[in-house]
Formats: sequence, structure tokens, C-alpha cells
Amino acid sequence: MQTDLIDKLNSTDKGEDALVVVHGGAGNIKLEYLPKEKLERVEADLTRALTNAFNLLKKGASAIEAVAAAVTVLEDAEMFNAGRGSCLNELGKVEMDASIMNGANLEAGSVACISNVKNPVLLAKAVMEHSNAVLLVGDGAELFAENMTKVIGLELAANEYFATPEALSELKRFQERGSMPHNALSTGSSQGEKYGTVGACARDLSGNVAAATSTGGLIGKLKGRVGDSPLVGAGVYADNQTCAVSTTGFGESFIRVVLAHEVSSLIRHAHKTIAEATVEAIHSVLSRSNGKGGLISINSQGDYALPFNTQGMYRGVITASGQVKISIS
Amino acid sequence: MQTDLIDKLNSTDKGEDALVVVHGGAGNIKLEYLPKEKLERVEADLTRALTNAFNLLKKGASAIEAVAAAVTVLEDAEMFNAGRGSCLNELGKVEMDASIMNGANLEAGSVACISNVKNPVLLAKAVMEHSNAVLLVGDGAELFAENMTKVIGLELAANEYFATPEALSELKRFQERGSMPHNALSTGSSQGEKYGTVGACARDLSGNVAAATSTGGLIGKLKGRVGDSPLVGAGVYADNQTCAVSTTGFGESFIRVVLAHEVSSLIRHAHKTIAEATVEAIHSVLSRSNGKGGLISINSQGDYALPFNTQGMYRGVITASGQVKISIS
Repeated sequence: MQTDLIDKLNSTDKGEDALVVVHGGAGNIKLEYLPKEKLERVEADLTRALTNAFNLLKKGASAIEAVAAAVTVLEDAEMFNAGRGSCLNELGKVEMDASIMNGANLEAGSVACISNVKNPVLLAKAVMEHSNAVLLVGDGAELFAENMTKVIGLELAANEYFATPEALSELKRFQERGSMPHNALSTGSSQGEKYGTVGACARDLSGNVAAATSTGGLIGKLKGRVGDSPLVGAGVYADNQTCAVSTTGFGESFIRVVLAHEVSSLIRHAHKTIAEATVEAIHSVLSRSNGKGGLISINSQGDYALPFNTQGMYRGVITASGQVKISIS
Repeated sequence: MQTDLIDKLNSTDKGEDALVVVHGGAGNIKLEYLPKEKLERVEADLTRALTNAFNLLKKGASAIEAVAAAVTVLEDAEMFNAGRGSCLNELGKVEMDASIMNGANLEAGSVACISNVKNPVLLAKAVMEHSNAVLLVGDGAELFAENMTKVIGLELAANEYFATPEALSELKRFQERGSMPHNALSTGSSQGEKYGTVGACARDLSGNVAAATSTGGLIGKLKGRVGDSPLVGAGVYADNQTCAVSTTGFGESFIRVVLAHEVSSLIRHAHKTIAEATVEAIHSVLSRSNGKGGLISINSQGDYALPFNTQGMYRGVITASGQVKISIS
């Protein structure tokens, strides 16, 4: 474990030259509950997400390509509640949501309630790039995914890829506790279990920003329930004129205050800095809906902020010089 | 036909004492293309939506009950693209979206991509009142609807209720023209066909505001496509501190600028009036995503605005004294 990576990232750190920020979920995450091996894997995954995106950007890739690459790493990682590591719904089935947005032109793509795609963020990107829609859900989104296997080589995956023995036993433990889905935020993390939505924000060498978010949602959730992650304005937003945002937390409370767009609005209309706007959003606006969680944000100048109102948030940043910082609590 | 009802409602009318505003869609609606009988039916339906909501409010009902009642009338009316009159998707099937939001506490409920419920707005209200979720989609939402038949007596309906001979022939004409779904906004109305999403905003005697939106989406749309109507922040928003908003138009462009929440943000953060904020949203912000459409809005004081950037918008208002005004172009 590289302990120098466990640098305390302040919620209002100003990184003049940040290129990519990522998160792997916010919640009652305590370092002391995290087994060393798990901690190392989380660190390694977040670092790989950052460096993959960084390497693309340094070769001139767009911010969109960078956030898609970062989120793909986290979806494949099993340590997070997205892609391979997704929580299962009340019926033991995976239902994933993802989104992506381009701050250069406000184009966006998102998918909700899908179960047949290895990397939901790539399906969201395909919706943005290969359809007239912004949001596709359920069977229709899965049909579109099947078509995209031929168009962009999108990889499908069966429910068994997601409903791993570990995921099924987590659901069983959850259901035996008789917990309501809305308690998942606290229960998952108190055991040091894998936790949370993933997301990335990046700026490219042209100063364009982008954001992406991906999640398996709440453990034991109602079939068909969709949180904030795939909703433009709630769980994701990107606008070169303000910033890019990806959120994590109890989705319903983020939807009700349209949190990602609220950050953008505070910058645009109330003339706040990214640090001021994100802190106000997480510590003041979100209290209107009793929300718990966090967000990551970056702007065209490389200023960034990673605030949360929970005990911890898996998060990291990579600067223009390639310096990686990871933090949890 | 009561021609005195065809009063020109200015997009920035200030009605000190408005209680309810409704819309039945915006687009290239020209009075000269509308057969007299159709015009009379639209007027009668909008008037009935307004008066039903008005009568409830005068008896002390909440703004939520009022907007649900108004939208239910328009969903049943067949003249609009919601509920019974919904457009069909590329496969000839109805896939409806609806939402409702309470400005008093920011609670919200919405459903997307459902086909088995007579009044989608009542299912959205049930999501708000009888689940922990804000948004349910597809099969899961339909399963929840089946459960709600026992809990609140929700009425289901088969695809045949929606896929009327008229709806099927409209889809056939649309597909024969080889139009892309995103052209539906102009094609539907140039023939004087039924047009547009429906919505209502109300304030109750306690000064609480609420909004609701319901739609069948775009004719010939991709299976699984969801527009702005069910998305809190895009197609619906309500906050006592600012206003209630329901939108109509080409949904993707409303999603990308989070238009309903943008109105609220302009009032809150840029200190605009409801007239200024709604005009800026429709005539300036929406141009960032090349959007066409309109919105209705009301605040706790009874100020309202009904702006649009299309040739027309079916719209109406009822004041505290019961005066009804309907306008189209």
C-alpha cells in the first residue's frame, strides 16, 4: 500500500491543474472497517481509472473519451457498485444506470434499468453518439445495446456476470436484516462492504469538460427504481461555462434538488467559485431533501472540488503533471 | 365555441391571482389548420381541466391534488398526446411518461416507459406517496401499478385503449413519410393533428405550489426512449420558494439544459421575476440546445407565465375568481 496516496484531499482543494477526478461512492466509510487488502484494491482501481484517463488526455483524447475510460475501469473493478460489482435489486437481478455528458456542447446520453451490458457507461455514450435520444430505459435500452454490438463492438454480459455469489450473499444478508432499501447507504459501509456509485469528471487539452456516472443503485431496491445517476441535472452535468459534476449518495434526495445542475447554477447565476458552489450544494442545498452523499467537480481551468457530507468518499485526482492523490475519509 | 375564451394570453402575463395553469402542448400550431370542432374540443378539455382543479382547490384540496386532477382530465381527453391520446412508438406500442412534484417539501414521483395505466400521472403520484422511490420505469413501474390497483384503486388499461385506430393510422402516416422521430414536433401540428404533452401547475389556499406533466412522447420514437416529462428538473419542477413549472416540446433539448430547474435557479440565484425567468429560459437558455417548446409556471403569489418559442401552445389559466382564459397561438 502506498500510504502517500492516502493524502487528505480537502473537500475544497483547489488544484490549479487537475485533469481528472474520480469517485467510487460516498457513505459511512471508515478506514478502520476496511480490510487492508480491500483498501489496497480500491486505491489501485481508483489510481488505474485516473491514469488511464490521464494517458488518453495526454495523447489528445477528448474529455468524453477520458471519463468513459475512467468509469469503465471502475465498472470492471468489482470493488464498486457499478458494472461488475453492482448491487442486486429485490429480485436478485442487476438493474444498472449510467450517464455521460459533454460540457462543450451539452450533448448527453444515459441509460437506466439495464442488465445486459458489461459497461453501462459505454452504452450511455452510444446513446449520445448513435441515437437522437438522451435517455433510453429498460427493454428498449437493452435492444439498442444489442444493435450497438455490431456498430461499436459493445460487449454484452449476462445476469450471471453481475449476480456473483458475493453479490447474492450480500443481498441475502440485506434482506435477512429486513432493512428497507433506503437504508443501504449506511448498512453497506458499516461492514466495510463495497460501496457506491462511481463517476469521473475530466477536462481535456482544449479546456472542454465532461462527466460520467454509473451505478447498480440501491441494494434490494424495488424493480424499476432509478436513482439520480442517469439523470442529467441530478447525477451528472457538464457545461464548459461552469463545470462538470458527478454525484454519489442516496439518489432520491439528489433528484429532488437537481444537485449537479444546482452546482452549475450557483456558479453561473450566483457567481460562486467551484469550491463555494460545491460546498453550498452538498452542505446546504442537499439538506433540503435530507440528502447524504458527495460529488466530484472540475472546471475548464482545472479547479476541482470533492465535497461530501458522509463519513467518507472514495475519491481521487490526477494533476496535469501526473501526480495522483487518493483519499477515503 | 366561446370566442371570448380565445383571449391572447401573453407569454409574460402577470395574473396576480392565478390558481391553476395548464398546457396541452407547444408546436407549429396554427389556428387556421385547426378544424372548428377540434378547436372546440381542445378548449372544452382545457377548460374542464382548469375548472376541475379550481373546484378542488376552493374546497381546500392541496396543489398536488389539483394538478393531478387537471392532468387526469387531459390524459382522458384524447385530444392530447398523453394517456388515451398518446403517440405510439416505432413498434406501435404506447410508452408513457409522467411526473408530479410538491413545492412544499420537494417530494416528487415519476414514471417512464409504462403502457398499462389509464392515468400515468396518478401512478407518478402513487410513486411519490406509496414508495421510497422518485422514479420507476418500465416493467418495474408496471408491476408497482398492478400493486396500486389494490392500494389506491389505480385503473389499468390495455395497449388497445391507447393504440386506437386513429393513433395507429397517425403512426402509419408518420412512418410512410419516412420522418425521423425528432421531426414529430413539426409534422404533427402542420396537419392540425393532436399535439403535445400536457401539464398543470397550481397553488393552493395555503400558498403551496405543485406541478405535473404527462406525455406519450414522440410519435414513432425508439422503444425505451424517455423525454423530459418524467425527469425532475427537466420537464417538471416545484419549489414554494421559487415556482412550479411544467414544460412541453422536444424533450432532449429540455433535458440538456435542465429547463424547469433553470427557471427556478434564475428566480433563486439571479433574482429574476417569474416572467423574466421563464422568458429567459425559453428564449435564451433553450437556444443553447436548439430547443423548441414552451412551459407554464406559477408561484405562491399567483404570478404566472406561459412562454413558448413555437407558433403556438395550447394553454389556459383560471384565476382565484374563477375566470378562465384559453389561448392557442
